Order: sequence, then structure tokens, then C-alpha cells
Amino acid sequence: MPDKKKYLEMLKRSVEANRLRGFFAQYPEHPKAYPAEAPEKGEKAFRAHLNKDFDELLQGTPEGRAGEEVSPFTSEALGIHYPVYSVETLLENARQARSAWRKEDVEARALILVDALERIKERFFEIAYATMHTTGQGWVMSFQASGPHSNDRALEALAMAYEELTRFPREVDWVKPMGKFEIKVHKSFHPVGKGISLAIACSTFPVWNSVPGIFASLVTGNPVIVKPHPGAVYPLAIVIAELQQAFLAAGHEPKTVQLAVDTPDKLIAKELAENPNVKIIDYTGGNEFGDYLESLKGKEVFTEKAGVNSVIFDSVKNLDAVLQNLAFSVSLYSGQMCTAPQNFYIPESGILENGKRVSYEDMVNRLRDAIYSFARHPKMGPGTLGAIQNERTLKMVQAVDSLGVGLLLTPEAIENPEFANARTCAPSILEVDAESELIREELFGPVILIIKTRDTAHSLQLAHDIAMEKGAITCAAYTVNPEMERMIEEKMEEAFVPVSFNLTGYIWVNQNAAFSDFHVTGGNPAGNASLADPNFVNRRFVWVGHKKLMD
Amino acid sequence: MPDKKKYLEMLKRSVEANRLRGFFAQYPEHPKAYPAEAPEKGEKAFRAHLNKDFDELLQGTPEGRAGEEVSPFTSEALGIHYPVYSVETLLENARQARSAWRKEDVEARALILVDALERIKERFFEIAYATMHTTGQGWVMSFQASGPHSNDRALEALAMAYEELTRFPREVDWVKPMGKFEIKVHKSFHPVGKGISLAIACSTFPVWNSVPGIFASLVTGNPVIVKPHPGAVYPLAIVIAELQQAFLAAGHEPKTVQLAVDTPDKLIAKELAENPNVKIIDYTGGNEFGDYLESLKGKEVFTEKAGVNSVIFDSVKNLDAVLQNLAFSVSLYSGQMCTAPQNFYIPESGILENGKRVSYEDMVNRLRDAIYSFARHPKMGPGTLGAIQNERTLKMVQAVDSLGVGLLLTPEAIENPEFANARTCAPSILEVDAESELIREELFGPVILIIKTRDTAHSLQLAHDIAMEKGAITCAAYTVNPEMERMIEEKMEEAFVPVSFNLTGYIWVNQNAAFSDFHVTGGNPAGNASLADPNFVNRRFVWVGHKKLMD
Repeated sequence: MPDKKKYLEMLKRSVEANRLRGFFAQYPEHPKAYPAEAPEKGEKAFRAHLNKDFDELLQGTPEGRAGEEVSPFTSEALGIHYPVYSVETLLENARQARSAWRKEDVEARALILVDALERIKERFFEIAYATMHTTGQGWVMSFQASGPHSNDRALEALAMAYEELTRFPREVDWVKPMGKFEIKVHKSFHPVGKGISLAIACSTFPVWNSVPGIFASLVTGNPVIVKPHPGAVYPLAIVIAELQQAFLAAGHEPKTVQLAVDTPDKLIAKELAENPNVKIIDYTGGNEFGDYLESLKGKEVFTEKAGVNSVIFDSVKNLDAVLQNLAFSVSLYSGQMCTAPQNFYIPESGILENGKRVSYEDMVNRLRDAIYSFARHPKMGPGTLGAIQNERTLKMVQAVDSLGVGLLLTPEAIENPEFANARTCAPSILEVDAESELIREELFGPVILIIKTRDTAHSLQLAHDIAMEKGAITCAAYTVNPEMERMIEEKMEEAFVPVSFNLTGYIWVNQNAAFSDFHVTGGNPAGNASLADPNFVNRRFVWVGHKKLMD
Repeated sequence: MPDKKKYLEMLKRSVEANRLRGFFAQYPEHPKAYPAEAPEKGEKAFRAHLNKDFDELLQGTPEGRAGEEVSPFTSEALGIHYPVYSVETLLENARQARSAWRKEDVEARALILVDALERIKERFFEIAYATMHTTGQGWVMSFQASGPHSNDRALEALAMAYEELTRFPREVDWVKPMGKFEIKVHKSFHPVGKGISLAIACSTFPVWNSVPGIFASLVTGNPVIVKPHPGAVYPLAIVIAELQQAFLAAGHEPKTVQLAVDTPDKLIAKELAENPNVKIIDYTGGNEFGDYLESLKGKEVFTEKAGVNSVIFDSVKNLDAVLQNLAFSVSLYSGQMCTAPQNFYIPESGILENGKRVSYEDMVNRLRDAIYSFARHPKMGPGTLGAIQNERTLKMVQAVDSLGVGLLLTPEAIENPEFANARTCAPSILEVDAESELIREELFGPVILIIKTRDTAHSLQLAHDIAMEKGAITCAAYTVNPEMERMIEEKMEEAFVPVSFNLTGYIWVNQNAAFSDFHVTGGNPAGNASLADPNFVNRRFVWVGHKKLMD
């Protein structure tokens, strides 16, 4: 272990941060906080991998090769070919790796995983390019989301698990007084991992959404098989390669964590998930497959699926600041975030700005103008929008004009000065009434709905009901009325949705910070797990307590 | 609140006990630790309830009456008629009670529930008689299991939940440094109960197995409907009545917890369980119904089902002491405990006692004699055996002679000097080989199997395999060989079964102590929950974190 004492301190600091839930970041999000040569080095490493076999994994001789990634920015294939292994090979490797790994000391497991994070840190810039050219995220987001934010979220889960795994004494003497004598029993308490863990990643946030589950399963003593989306393998391949290096350096079997690459014509997620030896599944993606996974028997399944996020307007101090904030939220990664706002509820009588009424029509116009202008702002638009990850999302968004509802902003491509062939689309806006079925559906990508309501109470009721029925991860609310604030908080809480009040400036409803914000509550259909609450780690192992009568 | 400071100290002491896992008991198990007049007062209260309507519940006007309990000791009907309410009424009451209860402060909720435990304590002796004459447990066990042990187990779950509900700050300022400025966000973290909770109790341990889930659900903000087994309503009715009194005294709706009595001809457990508003289910009972409950969608289900518990013989210091201990374990409540040993594995070459070989045949004979004599010991037998809860169990046990395997001890009634009409049956012993399908089945009641194996490794493999396939809650192992001890521990741990080594004297494999032993691991088919690990409480609520931008 390169620096055991330092790593242990990092871990303990993170345990403390989890408890305090104030601001904490182990890995700074600003690219300039890293060595000056790192960006160039990262870009070079990225270019060096293109059109080559990816040979960094320590998983044995490949049984085949696959790789179908296409950059949403250049529209060109990355040409990286990853090793492919059969489901049988992957499961047998995991089974073999488990017996030594589950017996390894908890602290040793945790420190190996901290070491992995430190190794991953060295590749943040390459991971940024890999993320950008697979997911379509803009460069800054690619760096932050797949680099420091992912590492922080993994460390958060690791620290939460470390705290839980060490919360009971490993050994204790239980001495029961019996009047004239005592009964003495020596007890030992062992956390035992449930078994092979499967992480099924998505194409939009391959690293951020996967690493918490991967690290939580590993530290609780479970080998992990990581099944990336065929369209976004590269960023995860780097993460797994570095994890395997950390295992190797510690004298452990690198195949304790494996990358399971598949192809669209032969997807292996179902076969892996249904195998009786797979006991834990982490999943990010659509509801249909998520619901199927949740229905599998004898598995601990952790899901983040889709939901319908809402914005409730009641009253504001500075409407321009509010609309700028929301224009950014809507544009960020072209609405391809599970936290992006979708349903904007505006009362028919409009809203209050500093006690002055702004009519419904003015609200709609100003919101539309803010979104329109932001996306077309040469300095802000293209970099914030990034690119659309895949053709299917683009086609769905482009089809909004056929929905037969009021179209306030049409989906239009936005020129990206750096990438002439980028797959882009500025946010479009539909105006619908509260009875429309559309407001009860997740519309993935850069499209929002404006919904005219009777009043704020009506907006709230709709946001609540739809969250209960379809799920929701975020709710942005704007009110300067404390009584209304309380009402919104209580009502949305009934639907297990956290509310962000009055956000303006450099903080957005889309963002959840590690060590402070729980990401997804697990209480509504948007997902059954929460990053990273105690359940997120405790459900991966059980406590087995042995006893021995003492002489 | 009668004594808020005292109650809070009790709670905090219990939180600490949960962490330390050494010996701790809030409620002493010895009847003599209670006021001298308490036993007689309890018996009188019991007699006063017989052949009357049970009118202590605060659930509104009864919609009917039911009561079919029959004492396994006297074979007479108790004649107590409980109020009956429709499923609609019960659910509507719970729905209404929820809105105030879930918003109540965590500490206030916890203290009301401590108050309930203190009220229940005043009725320990009546509960003992109620338990005895519904479950068939002997008097001492009835007192301990349904009285102090149940209260301790409820307090343990309550304390575990209290710790979890308060582990994150309720409010925190999150201040993110941004170079020249800061972003300040005020955050609040609320634990929000998932919804209506249903507790389905069994006929053998109606109180002990139910109160942990009832108290855990209540303190996490969920109203609870308690569905007792029609054959064992009375002990739970007292517990619910006292809970309702505690709610009333604190100005809360007593219907926050309700008793849902049904009858064998119209059972309501399924209708309640399937209702979409029921979000949490606690269940103790058979595998078939437990598996069905676990398969329900959108519920948090906590089960304790059946398993096949094993005894592994390798080597001992004092065989007589071992056999006495096991004879008690087998006889205790006539094997009607989920923790009772069933499969006794003995190597064909026998075992070592102080380095001297005891042949297989001698082992079998001495084990049989010990069990035979214990059951027929006038001072020990009848009180330890108690009675068989129901006719079905008795018939199953009596049918062992038709199984076509070696019958070493036949099922025989044992005269109970106090109760001439008691439904009794001494333990019977079958001798089967390792290939028999019988060893893979739970045989409920006073029957054990002796299985001849090749050696200890073979015994261990069978115990492991059957635990993985059918579940197991306990494993008793006897070995003086440290290497073998380590092997047994590791192998059974793979099947998520705790091992008790070398028990003799006044400590038995059947017993799990609150604040120290986790009851059921949750890792094998014997149940998916553990009393009371963090999962047992955390799965009942989610964290909702609101944010507000600070000026």
C-alpha cells in the first residue's frame, strides 16, 4: 500500500463528512487544481487509445473483441476494441475471486479501494475526453462528472460502507450474571458480503452513476462485474483498469472486478442478472428494464430509473436571475440528466416578482426567451449543451412538433464551433394543459413542458401526483412566502421528492453534491436506492455473529 | 410524558448497548425482579378476561366480534371476543393517523414508544398467562419470551431506529468556496416513513416476533396494522392496547396502531398485504406465505420463515454435559422454535471425548437416552416441553412412524401434572442416512433427525448445503479442535448461518439475546431480515433533503 496512513485519514475524513453533510470535496472539481501538464497528457492518452485494442484490463486472454463507440461530437467511431468474455467466464472468475476477497480484512479492502481512487485521479483528464466522446457531455461537465465528482461519490459510498462495516465490535465477551455464577460467551461479528455483484451502466453517465455501487459492493466483500452500455465503454474501462491495478498492487486477484463488454446484437445484462449466483444488481437506465430487474427474486437490486421533475413557480425576488438559472438547468447536457427539470407549472394568474404581478403570458415569453438566448449564446450555449448521446434521443426530441400541442420553441441544431459534426439540439418548449397525458411522461432530452395551472396549490398537487405515479428526482420551487414554502416541502415530501428553493446563480437543481445531498430518495418510482444512504451499503452484506462458550 | 428524562436515558443506554453488543437487559428476565404482588395480579387479570368481550382497544365501535382461541393446556376455549373491523376501516384509520404521526418529532415518537414499553411491563404477568394459554409455551418461557425478552427486543429495534433517524443533522449550512465568493445553501434532512405498515404475527411467538417490527415501523413514522394469528390474539391485544394508551396519553391518535383480528374462515392478511397503500410488511411464519409476501411489488417485506437447523458433532470435553444441553434445546417448547436444532450429524466413526473415541452407536444411544430422560423428568420435562400449539403440528409429529425410516424414539404424550388435558408430545428421533430427502425439510415440532455421515467435513458440507437451499437460523457445533472450529465457522458463514460452539450449561442454541445477538441473518432462505440490524430499521423510511439558497 503506497501510503496507508494517508489513505486511512482520507477515509476517516470522508466518514466524518458523510455525518456532517456540509460542504466537502476530496477531489477538487476545478481542472486547474491538477498538475499543469495533466490536461495535455490526458488528451494524448485519449488519442493514443483511438483505433486500437484496449489492452489495459487484467482479465486474461480475450475470447473476442468488441467496440462500437461513436463520438457524438465528431460522429466518428472511436475504433477502440475491448476484450470480450463469455458470461460463464465472467461468473467463474468472480466466483473464484470471491473466496479470498470476502475474507480480507475490512480496513485492507477499504484502503485498496482508496488506492484505486488515487490511481483513477491520475487519469481524470483522459477520462474526461473518453466521457465527452462517448456520452456527448461538454468538456467541463465530462471532466467534473466523470472525474472529481465521480471519485467523491465513490469515496462517499466507500466511507459510508466503512462506517457500517466497523460499527459493531469484531469480538466481544458477553457475560450474563446468573446470581451465584456467570455465563461467559465469546462472540464475534462478521459482515459477510451477499455474493457476486453486477453493475449495469448507462450511456449518459457511465462513471458517475456506476462507481458508488461498484465501490460499495467491493468494500463489502463482493466481486463485481461491470456491464457498460455498448455506447459508453471507454470511461468505465479506464476506471476498471485502475481498480485492477490497485488489486494487483495489493496482491489480490485483479478479476475481483471485471469489465463485461457486450454488443447491441448480443446484450448480456439479462443473462448475468438472472444467474442465481448474482446476488446484487446496480442499475441506471430506463424504467422498463429497471422494473424487470426489481422483480427478480433473491437479489438486492439498486435502481435509478426515470422520473418527471417539476418546477413550481409561486413568487420570486428577481425573475431574470431565476430564468437565467433555469435556462442553464434546461440546457445543461441538453436535458439528458435524470435531475433535469421537465414540467414547468405556471399559475394562470401569473406569479409575483417583488410583490408585482407578472402575467402568465409574460412568464411564458420570458422563460422561452431566456432558454432560447442561452442556447444560442456563443460562449455559453454549445459548451453547456454538449451533444445528444444517440440518434434515438435526437429523433424523439425532433418528433415533438408532431405531438399536436403548442410548440413554443422548436428543436433546432446549434452550431458547435469546435465540432462541425456534433449531434446537437437546443431545448424545445411545449405548452400543454394540466389534463394532457404528456405531463405524466418522462420526455428524455432537451424538451420541457409549460403547464398552465389554476394556482400554486394546483401546481403542487400535479407535481406531487405525478411524482407518486411516475417518480421524480428533483423539484425546483420558487416562493418568497414562508407558509407556501412549508406547504411545498411537506407535500413533495409525501411523494419522497426533495425540493430546491429559490436557486439562482451558480447552483442548479440538476446538481447533487457528494457527502451532502442524497441522490434519489428511493421512495418513489424514479428509483429504489439513494446515493449513498446507509441502505445503499447495508443491503450488500449481512451480519453473522458466532458464539463460543468460554471456560 | 410521565418521565421524559428517564425515558431518554433508557433510549440512549439502549443505543449504546446496541453498539457494544455485550450483555444488556433493560427488563430483567427473572419473575422475582418484579413486585411481589405482580404474579397474582397478572393471573387475576387473565381470569377476568376469559369468556368476555375484549374492550381495551381504542379503535372505535366494533363492526363485529371474533375470538377462537383454545388453550393448548386445558383444551378449553378462552372465550375472549375481540372487536373486528373491515379492511377498509383499518386502512382508512391508518391513512388518517399517518399524516400527524409522520410529522411528529423523532424524539417525541421514540419517547411515546418507550412509555408504551413501560406500560406493557406492568402487564408482563397477564401477558405470560395469555401467551401460555394461546401458544402452549410453558409458564417460565411465556413470561420471559413475551414479557422482558420481547420488551428488550422492541427497545433494541427502537434504539437502533432512533440512532439511524438522528444520525444526520436536521439542518446544515452548506457553504461552497468559489474563489472570490461562496455559495451558501441551507439544507434540511428529513427521515420520511414509507407508509402504512402491516405486521403479520404467528401462533407460537405472537409478541416476541412482532414487536421489533411494530416498534421499528412506528418510530420511523409509519402507522401499523397488526394482524395476529387467530389462535394467539390475546397477548398481542394487550400489547396493542397499551400502545394505544401511550398514544392517547401523548395526545396522539390511538389508531396509529391497530389490531386487525380475523377468523380462520375469512383471513385478511392477503387483502391487507396486497393493498397498494400498505408499503411495509413484517411477517413470521411458514415459507409458502413468506415467499408470496416477498414477491409482492412495491413493498418493503421483512420475513422470518422456516429453516433446517443443524448440530455438528466433532469432539467434546464432556459428552454428558453436551447431551444434557441438547436434550433441553430439543425439548424447549417441544421444538416449536425457529431456532430449535433439527438435523444432528454424527460421523460414522463416532466422535472424540477428551481424546477418547465414542462410537457412532454409543453417541446415538446416549443422545436418545438423554432426550428420553429429560422429557420424562418430573421436575424438568413438562414445564420445559409446554404444550403443542395446535392439532396440526401434533398430527404431523405423530405421523413420523409412517415415514418408513428408523424410529429411535416414538412420539409419546407426556403427562402434565397441572393440566390433565394438555396437548403434549415428547421429542421423537428418526435415524436417516445422508441421502434422505427428509433431512432437507423443516419438520416443525418435537422431532429430530440423526444423520450418519462419513466425517465432520461431510456433516459440515450437508449443513451448509441445506442451509443455502432451505435456510437455517442456528447451527450448534461441538469441537475442541481450533482448526476445525475455524473451518466450521467459515463454511457456515458462506451459508449466512451463525455458529454456536460448545454450548453446555445454562445457555442454549435456541436463544438469541437482545442487544447482542442478531436474530436471523437475512442471508439465506430462512428469512430476509435480521433483528435488529441497521437494515431492519433503515428500510422503513427514506431520507429527503431539501435545499434553500441563502441570501
